[in-house]
Amino acid sequence: MRKGICTGSFDPVTNGHINIFERASKLVDELTVCVFVNTQKNYLFDVEERVQLLKESTRHIENLKIDSSGGLVADYVKSHGIKTIFRGLRSATDFEKEFVQAQFTKYLAPEVETIFLLTEINFSFISSSGVRELAKFHGEVGGLVPKCVEIALRKKFGD
Amino acid sequence: MRKGICTGSFDPVTNGHINIFERASKLVDELTVCVFVNTQKNYLFDVEERVQLLKESTRHIENLKIDSSGGLVADYVKSHGIKTIFRGLRSATDFEKEFVQAQFTKYLAPEVETIFLLTEINFSFISSSGVRELAKFHGEVGGLVPKCVEIALRKKFGD
Amino acid sequence: MRKGICTGSFDPVTNGHINIFERASKLVDELTVCVFVNTQKNYLFDVEERVQLLKESTRHIENLKIDSSGGLVADYVKSHGIKTIFRGLRSATDFEKEFVQAQFTKYLAPEVETIFLLTEINFSFISSSGVRELAKFHGEVGGLVPKCVEIALRKKFGD
Amino acid sequence: MRKGICTGSFDPVTNGHINIFERASKLVDELTVCVFVNTQKNYLFDVEERVQLLKESTRHIENLKIDSSGGLVADYVKSHGIKTIFRGLRSATDFEKEFVQAQFTKYLAPEVETIFLLTEINFSFISSSGVRELAKFHGEVGGLVPKCVEIALRKKFGD
Amino acid sequence: MRKGICTGSFDPVTNGHINIFERASKLVDELTVCVFVNTQKNYLFDVEERVQLLKESTRHIENLKIDSSGGLVADYVKSHGIKTIFRGLRSATDFEKEFVQAQFTKYLAPEVETIFLLTEINFSFISSSGVRELAKFHGEVGGLVPKCVEIALRKKFGD
Amino acid sequence: MRKGICTGSFDPVTNGHINIFERASKLVDELTVCVFVNTQKNYLFDVEERVQLLKESTRHIENLKIDSSGGLVADYVKSHGIKTIFRGLRSATDFEKEFVQAQFTKYLAPEVETIFLLTEINFSFISSSGVRELAKFHGEVGGLVPKCVEIALRKKFGD
Repeated sequence: MRKGICTGSFDPVTNGHINIFERASKLVDELTVCVFVNTQKNYLFDVEERVQLLKESTRHIENLKIDSSGGLVADYVKSHGIKTIFRGLRSATDFEKEFVQAQFTKYLAPEVETIFLLTEINFSFISSSGVRELAKFHGEVGGLVPKCVEIALRKKFGD
Repeated sequence: MRKGICTGSFDPVTNGHINIFERASKLVDELTVCVFVNTQKNYLFDVEERVQLLKESTRHIENLKIDSSGGLVADYVKSHGIKTIFRGLRSATDFEKEFVQAQFTKYLAPEVETIFLLTEINFSFISSSGVRELAKFHGEVGGLVPKCVEIALRKKFGD
Repeated sequence: MRKGICTGSFDPVTNGHINIFERASKLVDELTVCVFVNTQKNYLFDVEERVQLLKESTRHIENLKIDSSGGLVADYVKSHGIKTIFRGLRSATDFEKEFVQAQFTKYLAPEVETIFLLTEINFSFISSSGVRELAKFHGEVGGLVPKCVEIALRKKFGD
Repeated sequence: MRKGICTGSFDPVTNGHINIFERASKLVDELTVCVFVNTQKNYLFDVEERVQLLKESTRHIENLKIDSSGGLVADYVKSHGIKTIFRGLRSATDFEKEFVQAQFTKYLAPEVETIFLLTEINFSFISSSGVRELAKFHGEVGGLVPKCVEIALRKKFGD
Repeated sequence: MRKGICTGSFDPVTNGHINIFERASKLVDELTVCVFVNTQKNYLFDVEERVQLLKESTRHIENLKIDSSGGLVADYVKSHGIKTIFRGLRSATDFEKEFVQAQFTKYLAPEVETIFLLTEINFSFISSSGVRELAKFHGEVGGLVPKCVEIALRKKFGD
Repeated sequence: MRKGICTGSFDPVTNGHINIFERASKLVDELTVCVFVNTQKNYLFDVEERVQLLKESTRHIENLKIDSSGGLVADYVKSHGIKTIFRGLRSATDFEKEFVQAQFTKYLAPEVETIFLLTEINFSFISSSGVRELAKFHGEVGGLVPKCVEIALRKKFGD
């Protein structure tokens, strides 16, 4: 069985992420989407909320499961028998950061392959931080995130 | 009437900014320079000081006005009937950040055009953060910022 | 009167070019689209054909005129009183080439400003060379070029 | 059955290419390596030689087949039921070219996914053109290409 | 006598840094490695520890001395008669940051040359922050840093 | 004795090249400037003319000698006991090409170091091809190239 993973903060998940999940899920038999938590960062949504929003917005993808972790990506994939890490690429600057990260992962887990999908151009300007900024000013986020995230953002910012 | 805008933190305004204002002001009938405030950032100069330094250093540009805002750029330009956002570009890395930002602005305000001017090469190494760092160590900032900013920096750092 | 120019080979003009013309034409009072001919290059369409296709596909833009030249861009703009050169930017690599070109133009014609518009993302993969390649293999070019260009390409490749 | 493809000129195939084939072959059930011929280019090896060298140097990869084509990649994959195009990425500049190409492919064949593998760092400086240049000056190409290619290069350059 | 300098935070020094020191030391008669301290940053190792680890891991390089400073690089090199600043380059993004910094240094100390060495590809994924992250999760850092740093990291993270 | 080299086509030498020679010559005891000839390229000036123009325009640099070669850079430096190759960098795109080339050179001549100097910003738009293009249209090249090159260009283009 081919197993793959998408990793990130997902604070919150956007339509750009969902598009990557849909495409990656076709390339493996089982796709895990895993929230990695960095204890030195401040998040808008806590990890349980982020996992819950991911679950609600990915019900249409059959071979997908949601998880979270506070450790290293390399340790997670080794202990779960995952051989493929999927990453979305938006730009040449993205590429350079990802290149260093992928080499580091290869050093830690040589049998794991990092592969890259290009962000769908119509989603390429959407980032979790842009969505949070927009929601803070009560802007319209309806086209950028799943419905459940839109509702959760409204609650957070008291609309 | 063609209206344009230059946005930024301007903490403080540099000769590189002034050069962009001078060139952008020739491309529109009225140019607004607007200080956008991010409440999560720490600034050296508060917003009133930054507005004041901008006013003093742009008196020679006739069709220019100074303003400040705590909101979104897209909301500001829509409510002021501004159709052109000017951005200075120094490098390919700049370009990538600006590309994402410009697409986001287009999503929020489709009728507004973001256009890019290249930073004059002799000013391309000047940034507000570099100027602050230099002033902190009592370095010579005379060629990098307008006279009024030089004086204000000396006061801040007790020269 | 503000005069601007868009320059290129336009072999042939694509919908991406037309989109840039439409947006640039709003930023000046008169926009010239000028075919520059490099005698060392081989073209699919000769210069008269390219001018003709540009004329047919830009009739809806009122303040636009078509021209051609075998000289330097810097000489053309100086002799025609044009103060603004518009360039479309698709990527960071584009940016670097344009940066060098714009500095060279500034050296030759210091009073002329090169300004950059971002290519509309849905047109960003369209290039004249891609269109020629596709037409050669009898692929569908209908969404990529104006109607008159589609017809001209079919004639060239004997569909 | 998941089918994938690696495309290129392979003039000649290098150890860098072989490394990508080995890794891509693990991600699909059947991998096609297809030589695409551009009639306007001059090649060192003709298409039959290139196919033969590919065959000899990929015998150890079970689920791999070699082919050649004079058409468009998008047409080839559609007519062969291939859903995944693999591309190797070495650098940010590579990325930008590949980004445009992948968007073009998506326009022509929306159901096909282009995915990217990073070039193994120890192979990242190896290109077919570098190998040809080195062989021309009778340099040592042994570590850069498969044995059969080394022999073929020696014959071409009369060592 | 030709004097050169390598500057950085070195929190902690890695095998990638050591490789740059070894190569730079051959290009000058005396090489200074100087820890620059930014009072607004939090470090894992304090400046005395970082200097000590540098001393222990560079004993094999004869013409090298270790120092630390809380000032500007430009002031340090001017007061020590150093004419060459060495910087390691890993990527195009690195290049752009370094370009701005080098121009700034040139403005402050016109007689000083910044020259760039490429990071050895097998070390290019190693960064001090990656090493700290890995050590925090008790990962294997043995191939990435000198022996004395490995021991110091184990003490910090209580292995 | 430290020996270094600057390589290129120098068709013709520009003020940007001279600036690199002046700075590189201070970093070694003997600097060779070597014209490398690619038999598949067309040049404006033949190799003897290019060597002659280099000689005339570098008389002020004492420790510099001019040479030419039809072979590989790696072979030349090995047979001449040169340990340092100097390259000028203008941009991030330059960097990526140079990175691949430097890795290739390291593979062929592991003991040779390629080091990079940043192009002086006021020369960064000057290229040999830009100069040739400008001279062809009888433009003013006086600020871009040494006097002897200006005269040689005028002769070529019959001014």
